[in-house]
Amino acid sequence: MRHVICAIVENKSGVLAHIAGLFSSRGFNIDSLTVGRTEDPNLSRMTIVTEGDEAILEQIRKQLGKVIDVIRVMDFSGRDLVQRDLALVKVNTPPGKRPEIVGLVDVFRGKVVDISQNDMVIELSGPEAKVEAFADMMRPFGIKEMVRTGVVALVRGEKNSKG
Amino acid sequence: MRHVICAIVENKSGVLAHIAGLFSSRGFNIDSLTVGRTEDPNLSRMTIVTEGDEAILEQIRKQLGKVIDVIRVMDFSGRDLVQRDLALVKVNTPPGKRPEIVGLVDVFRGKVVDISQNDMVIELSGPEAKVEAFADMMRPFGIKEMVRTGVVALVRGEKNSKG
Repeated sequence: MRHVICAIVENKSGVLAHIAGLFSSRGFNIDSLTVGRTEDPNLSRMTIVTEGDEAILEQIRKQLGKVIDVIRVMDFSGRDLVQRDLALVKVNTPPGKRPEIVGLVDVFRGKVVDISQNDMVIELSGPEAKVEAFADMMRPFGIKEMVRTGVVALVRGEKNSKG
Repeated sequence: MRHVICAIVENKSGVLAHIAGLFSSRGFNIDSLTVGRTEDPNLSRMTIVTEGDEAILEQIRKQLGKVIDVIRVMDFSGRDLVQRDLALVKVNTPPGKRPEIVGLVDVFRGKVVDISQNDMVIELSGPEAKVEAFADMMRPFGIKEMVRTGVVALVRGEKNSKG
């Protein structure tokens, strides 16, 4: 099962190594991981996507909660989430193919962020499946390079809460 | 000095812990880190943004190059890069303030991806400075939650190359 875990951690040297170690020592592979800033410069927010057995994941969650530099752990599995992944894709642009590529970029609401004689860099964000569908469409032209951020997620707002 | 390092690594349990350990054992803090998929399902691409002394960073680069599961290390410091960061921001929407917030989202070319009675989730991507400028504009309304992917980067295409 796919799990999305979020942890608020101290922005300190060593915290990432510690957490990555917790996962790897149990043989859990990390599908994607992001560590970015938050509103508080002392804190970072990690988003980890992993696949694996529920029982072992429960152990990892508990272990994570015991790490002093981990302020809070949230398991988003099964919650109603906004999930986004960002990709930068450098696509080969064979002669005459540029309009076709730009047309596809528009359909996916991507942005051409760099252009040169032989290639284009396209920025695209969305749910993972959208990013993958776009990569599928670009593959016939030749993907020279692709970098993805991995998933970040937020729980959607309460739809029935009163103002 | 700010450094952007990119590493192509085997998509295996333990690689991340190993690399994070290299940085932390030298007291280097990681400003942001992303690990995402690439075109090859066996390989992941890490983008690490860090600040620190050039001499120690050179050591880390060399150490990284020796890790068996690291296929390639690229130091992007000083190169002409496309850099992108993606943020999901949950903003408080006080009564009557929604149109003002939506107007700002448009100016920054962000997207409202979720809306409820009391808050909105906005997706925004761009260079780090743009994401920060947007967060500054949202702060007076009240940022309930923010998650950022951290930076991904690609070197721009050669502008003078012949087709």
